[in-house]
Amino acid sequence: MKKLYIAGPEVFLPNGRDQMAQKAALVRQHGFEPLCPGDLDIPAQKTKKAFGLAISKVNEGMMNDADGIIANLTPFRGEWADVGTVFELGYMCALGKMVAAYSNVADDHYQRLLRYYGNQITEGADGYKRGPDGLSLEDFEMADNLMLDGGVERRHGIVATHAAASDALYTDLTAFEACLIHLASLPGLRDAGMRPDELDASNDD
Amino acid sequence: MKKLYIAGPEVFLPNGRDQMAQKAALVRQHGFEPLCPGDLDIPAQKTKKAFGLAISKVNEGMMNDADGIIANLTPFRGEWADVGTVFELGYMCALGKMVAAYSNVADDHYQRLLRYYGNQITEGADGYKRGPDGLSLEDFEMADNLMLDGGVERRHGIVATHAAASDALYTDLTAFEACLIHLASLPGLRDAGMRPDELDASNDD
Repeated sequence: MKKLYIAGPEVFLPNGRDQMAQKAALVRQHGFEPLCPGDLDIPAQKTKKAFGLAISKVNEGMMNDADGIIANLTPFRGEWADVGTVFELGYMCALGKMVAAYSNVADDHYQRLLRYYGNQITEGADGYKRGPDGLSLEDFEMADNLMLDGGVERRHGIVATHAAASDALYTDLTAFEACLIHLASLPGLRDAGMRPDELDASNDD
Repeated sequence: MKKLYIAGPEVFLPNGRDQMAQKAALVRQHGFEPLCPGDLDIPAQKTKKAFGLAISKVNEGMMNDADGIIANLTPFRGEWADVGTVFELGYMCALGKMVAAYSNVADDHYQRLLRYYGNQITEGADGYKRGPDGLSLEDFEMADNLMLDGGVERRHGIVATHAAASDALYTDLTAFEACLIHLASLPGLRDAGMRPDELDASNDD
């Protein structure tokens, strides 16, 4: 049975363990084995930093062992995805594993940029749209930064979005299940995944 | 000569190309060859999304070709690192390349969490500190999320920080140069890098 690493910031919820257990049950319903951060007890360490390093090691080990990932990119403490989850998505893309991602906010990356800047956007002589801070805005009709969407879509993954209720932002599993359905439908499901050098960017149409 | 991929959100600055040229010059001074996003002209595409996918492909190709990465994790549009850069850092960690990262904000991850929550932190019966939104706070005495710092430090990289002036947040190169000095000093410089399965979490003391 193929193993999926379940990445997302819901581990920070008060009911994080329950939420992860619900996701794990759904993963099993779709024929995969879940690997969840927090599943393994981390041995005590002398310092906070050593404990953090030990968690990093365990999580990377689970990713190395997994056949794929579903990354929860729902905006977290701001308009953007949790950086720990994004690191894990990049890690799994590099290893050529099966990748899928989702967000429980349906607004795409550009719409969230407009919101972040309160619609105070100007277009300069260079043709770039910029916020009041001078930083240019990406608009690639993608759910998130092009490296994230690109990394997933170029590996025949999916970036699913769903407008969850505000009180279910980290618990709604609609888009998560869409990722499971997609991964279960992939013809390459029984393969070990694709290597980066076999990829191309032509699968967008 | 070893090649370093130069990742960071300064590409969004109005003078992004100049800034990247300055970084590239500094990389060469330290004996490395720079690989910079934006160095290559991306062919025209039919849609915005296709263009984004093409950039993703080119950037991943440069990372596959590089021997290492220096990732600029300076907080970007909020208190956290640019997600595109974080994806790239995870990608390079997975490939066992040489990794270094820096931030031009010296406050560590926990201090930035306190600022994000306006110091409105409570400690629950479960022993976790939480913000008003119920989300628990990480405190591992690290510059950023444990997957980022852990991924770098466990590969004998460095996470350099420097309190840059506010008008030089994306242009100050002090911490960037600290990364170059560190990478140039590594005994493994002439190796192709380490594989994840050779890693351990014991290098924190």
